[in-house]
Amino acid sequence: MKFQEQTGGTGTSARTGTVTVRGRSFATPVFMPVGTAASVKALTFPHLAEMGAQICLANAYHLYLRPGMEIIRDLGGLHGFTKWPGAFLVDSGGYQVFSMQGVRKITDDGVHFRSYIDGSPHYFDAEKVIDVQMGLNPDIAMILDDCTPYPADRERAQKGVDLTLNWARRAVEYYHSLKLDKNTSPCLFGIVQGSTYPDLRRTCAERLLEMDFAGYAIGGLSVGEPKEALWEILETIVPLLPDDKPKYLMGVGTPEDLVLAVDKGIDMFDCVLPTRNGRNGTAFTSRGVIIAKAARYKNSDKPLDENCHCFVCRTYSRAYIRHLLNISHMTACTLVSYHNMWFYLKLMESLRRAIDEDTFTDYKRGFLAGYRSGDGPTPAEEEEE
Amino acid sequence: MKFQEQTGGTGTSARTGTVTVRGRSFATPVFMPVGTAASVKALTFPHLAEMGAQICLANAYHLYLRPGMEIIRDLGGLHGFTKWPGAFLVDSGGYQVFSMQGVRKITDDGVHFRSYIDGSPHYFDAEKVIDVQMGLNPDIAMILDDCTPYPADRERAQKGVDLTLNWARRAVEYYHSLKLDKNTSPCLFGIVQGSTYPDLRRTCAERLLEMDFAGYAIGGLSVGEPKEALWEILETIVPLLPDDKPKYLMGVGTPEDLVLAVDKGIDMFDCVLPTRNGRNGTAFTSRGVIIAKAARYKNSDKPLDENCHCFVCRTYSRAYIRHLLNISHMTACTLVSYHNMWFYLKLMESLRRAIDEDTFTDYKRGFLAGYRSGDGPTPAEEEEE
Repeated sequence: MKFQEQTGGTGTSARTGTVTVRGRSFATPVFMPVGTAASVKALTFPHLAEMGAQICLANAYHLYLRPGMEIIRDLGGLHGFTKWPGAFLVDSGGYQVFSMQGVRKITDDGVHFRSYIDGSPHYFDAEKVIDVQMGLNPDIAMILDDCTPYPADRERAQKGVDLTLNWARRAVEYYHSLKLDKNTSPCLFGIVQGSTYPDLRRTCAERLLEMDFAGYAIGGLSVGEPKEALWEILETIVPLLPDDKPKYLMGVGTPEDLVLAVDKGIDMFDCVLPTRNGRNGTAFTSRGVIIAKAARYKNSDKPLDENCHCFVCRTYSRAYIRHLLNISHMTACTLVSYHNMWFYLKLMESLRRAIDEDTFTDYKRGFLAGYRSGDGPTPAEEEEE
Repeated sequence: MKFQEQTGGTGTSARTGTVTVRGRSFATPVFMPVGTAASVKALTFPHLAEMGAQICLANAYHLYLRPGMEIIRDLGGLHGFTKWPGAFLVDSGGYQVFSMQGVRKITDDGVHFRSYIDGSPHYFDAEKVIDVQMGLNPDIAMILDDCTPYPADRERAQKGVDLTLNWARRAVEYYHSLKLDKNTSPCLFGIVQGSTYPDLRRTCAERLLEMDFAGYAIGGLSVGEPKEALWEILETIVPLLPDDKPKYLMGVGTPEDLVLAVDKGIDMFDCVLPTRNGRNGTAFTSRGVIIAKAARYKNSDKPLDENCHCFVCRTYSRAYIRHLLNISHMTACTLVSYHNMWFYLKLMESLRRAIDEDTFTDYKRGFLAGYRSGDGPTPAEEEEE
């Protein structure tokens, strides 16, 4: 993997760059649509290609359980299985395994867990997750980490850092022992844990840096902590991470979060929001979030977002989309998910352009002033309807 | 509306033609995707346009209840509401109203029924259905008919014919009283009922012909009667219907049914099979039906249909589609529905070409010999897997 920084803006840590891995390139800051089980819910990969997605995320834990790593490996890895021509990043499944309270047991060595599908027993450790990842054969693989839940006392957070560092060391050692061809094999990202304790986070980052990963992720955020904690961690950790490697903030976030985290120097993002909200009919627009099912839209001939050029906004009225949501047609999920994903991907394009033109700070100010978070239309819209 | 017959084949009643209504044309024999509630389940109208659909079906009963005729009328009728650029045929809802045993009461005048959504009382009669249809403003509207259930004794079937003819007369009278501009208003089709009694069917058809409809549908079939009864009714009725008007067989059917009914002179079809089967993972292929979820396909790198050029077959393996079905991702419903609809529409294209080249009889023989109905792969496939 190669990361080429392009432009850094004035008065911001925002930067653009290009990641190249195994012949596939993507421009950063980048948003990665989440295709947990090798499919982005309610969308198709041709959809994602036409809206300019460059890299998608999948999940080792889910794919290990279903359809099984062997099936995907035998069909040519994730790229052969899904025919997605862009890049793939595969998360280790640490988050999934650790959130299965009651059906998993963590030891210093690894995690015993039961399948949520048939109750069968399974075991993940640092090496096993590398093996699964090599079978899936993405462009970027993540190490097994302890995704510390929030809130965590200091002891629990310290324990998470210890486990994560221990497993990271073993993962790197095992990865090197495989003597893979660097030009054709997945590269490995480390994950910084440490809950909301800046000093624990710093220690974790410093130890990971010694292991020389291809990129660094900040995990265990967006798990319920206050927003201030998120920004404090980014301000502490991002400057520590090397500028010649991509910096990835896992599982974040809303459009506002993306803008603010780019400002702090983050290069890569993933989040289920555009598709999860798409399925329940919540649309992201340039003026904020709207609940497309609201009765106020029953006669509206306006598109979801008047400033959007996606095929949904070029074609359909809110009244039509509301009707489909109201009768629970799955086509509605597809239409709103498509629009939301388009919105996220075009937002990232705009951020990259603003950084390259050194207008990021203005762009950020304008975006945040015009965007109303939370549920419901903007005040301007309420007047109109 | 104008129907221009093009070619009739040798040794068959199959024929091609072109229907032109309000500036929209479609080639027959035609298959109409069913978009009951102004949306074809799991697909989008741009999908349907790219696969060559020419005319879609919607349902007056469903749209009257939700979102309501006024909303659609105010947004420019069905075309304005859905942005579907092709033609629309709207069924009267007779089938829906009559199948609601227990919550509807039929009189000679019309039908009292309760909404399945909120239990509110409603009333449909010949005139009311015309009013609803004019609000929806499709290209082709259907009269309110009595869709006689199967089995029906002769008395019940006679009653259905009497009601249908009575309502047809009233519908035509009311339609003419509106003094609509023929070039911009929906045209009206009559519906032949009479259950499995050829003589009742004949009487019904003869009386309808006196009312001079723009086209004639044969309804109340594919409701559980034996296949022989279907073919007998077609052999009796199709020759009675005028050759300068389109002949529409409602709600039929499987790919084999389409080929055989075209052979008997049918011009128009609708059926929920491609999308309903698509949603449950049953795929139509050139060699018969396959259950894409079957464990036998878990490693298969073959497309659903090796003879198909749709984007699903050009892109995805059976293994991938099976995986998505297995984890109940709605994307799976979209992929199989897309393939199935493509299969139906390309089958109709092939039938039109065969008729025009006067090779229909050979085409029919070849298709039926290679196509295995029912569930499961063909014997050849069973060997391969």
